[in-house]
Amino acid sequence: MQEYFIKGLPSGEQVKVTDKDISKHMFTVMRLQVDDEVVLVFDDGIKRLARISDRDEQLLTLVEDLVDDVELPVAVTIAMGFPKGDKLEFVTQKATELGASQLWAFPADWSVVRWDAKKLAKKAEKLEKIAQGAAQQSKRNKIPSVQLFAHKKDFLAEVAQFDQIFLAYEESAKQGEQAQLVKGLSQLEPGQKILFIFGPEGGISPAEVADLTDLGAVSVGLGPRILRAETAPLYALSAVSVALELKG
Amino acid sequence: MQEYFIKGLPSGEQVKVTDKDISKHMFTVMRLQVDDEVVLVFDDGIKRLARISDRDEQLLTLVEDLVDDVELPVAVTIAMGFPKGDKLEFVTQKATELGASQLWAFPADWSVVRWDAKKLAKKAEKLEKIAQGAAQQSKRNKIPSVQLFAHKKDFLAEVAQFDQIFLAYEESAKQGEQAQLVKGLSQLEPGQKILFIFGPEGGISPAEVADLTDLGAVSVGLGPRILRAETAPLYALSAVSVALELKG
Repeated sequence: MQEYFIKGLPSGEQVKVTDKDISKHMFTVMRLQVDDEVVLVFDDGIKRLARISDRDEQLLTLVEDLVDDVELPVAVTIAMGFPKGDKLEFVTQKATELGASQLWAFPADWSVVRWDAKKLAKKAEKLEKIAQGAAQQSKRNKIPSVQLFAHKKDFLAEVAQFDQIFLAYEESAKQGEQAQLVKGLSQLEPGQKILFIFGPEGGISPAEVADLTDLGAVSVGLGPRILRAETAPLYALSAVSVALELKG
Repeated sequence: MQEYFIKGLPSGEQVKVTDKDISKHMFTVMRLQVDDEVVLVFDDGIKRLARISDRDEQLLTLVEDLVDDVELPVAVTIAMGFPKGDKLEFVTQKATELGASQLWAFPADWSVVRWDAKKLAKKAEKLEKIAQGAAQQSKRNKIPSVQLFAHKKDFLAEVAQFDQIFLAYEESAKQGEQAQLVKGLSQLEPGQKILFIFGPEGGISPAEVADLTDLGAVSVGLGPRILRAETAPLYALSAVSVALELKG
């Protein structure tokens, strides 16, 4: 069944669609008719079954809450050094499918691209749309938030809030630190906030490794193969899911 | 250090580069000079350090074998119903980075595309190039092989050779079969051959589920979120790596 994210919280049984994109999708693209059913997800993350009650007024009636929580048991933030081209778009889509809670990016020492404030605002807006679309398609309860930091120091100032900080560091693989990730994941409690940090294509600089280690980051290997910058976050999110959701 | 895959096996200490793409990359793109070092990987999967000994003759001298095996401990074949567009290209690149041993695709009941023999041959050639490039970049010991089946029955005839067969089935997630994948992976022995089967965008048909189950496939869930057709294989390969390589 089609799922739509609606900003805010429901104020009663009736919901009037005011978002133009959503109303276009419901009534023009999907051609929904009176009594057709969809799932609405408000800011509380609860999926609600809703029925079209008036096409002209774009009104829906809430039928019942659905018990369907597909969020990861921990809130995972993916933070990545600005990569080239449209890799952030790719990571945003795939990380949303794989359950990320927040998508952050920052200008890393070895980021090749330099984005000014205008470019960052435009990019963030695009990524938010991608996250929303991917969240709907993968039937998420929440749309991941997007934040692009203009300055690395502003990103570093946010690192302390997390319960676990993992730094995906290529050299870790060579130093036999393959067990660190599984070990770290096994210590997580439901509801905790974890942060995964990834470099851009060129990787994380030694100065950044030192700074992040001082802030409590644990260097982890993601297997022995060299993963591209945009592939590593997908591995990490899959690992979180395997460790916390597939235990049976 | 740059890595190149060379067909065949070395016949002595001297290696003459005959592949035009490789020689162009070595001597025109990378501008390698006498005494520069590269890694050569022959069909035996052993990485060998080699030194340029003659640019004009495109000769290299083998220096020593390197102890660097980054292959997964089990051979993983990814088989996917023909997806739309360039999704197979995407899956080939990413699955190669993530350690796949073979990449197969077949016309599934719900595949929208219909590729004739000419198109299949062209597609396979393109995928082989992508696999080779990705294998070099992720420093693999082997290039995954590519096989596109013109008929589903030919694919089904190959299924029996595997030690474990996993069917990524969306409905499994809903039936609480989240533990099947981890359980199956925990039973694997090094060197075994495993097969992961994925549907195209529309999924696997009930008839296909029945046929594959008869052939020994176990339906597995890949977490509670709906993954796109091209994302599911990446989750599966990451799961194999987490289960078998990150144990420490």
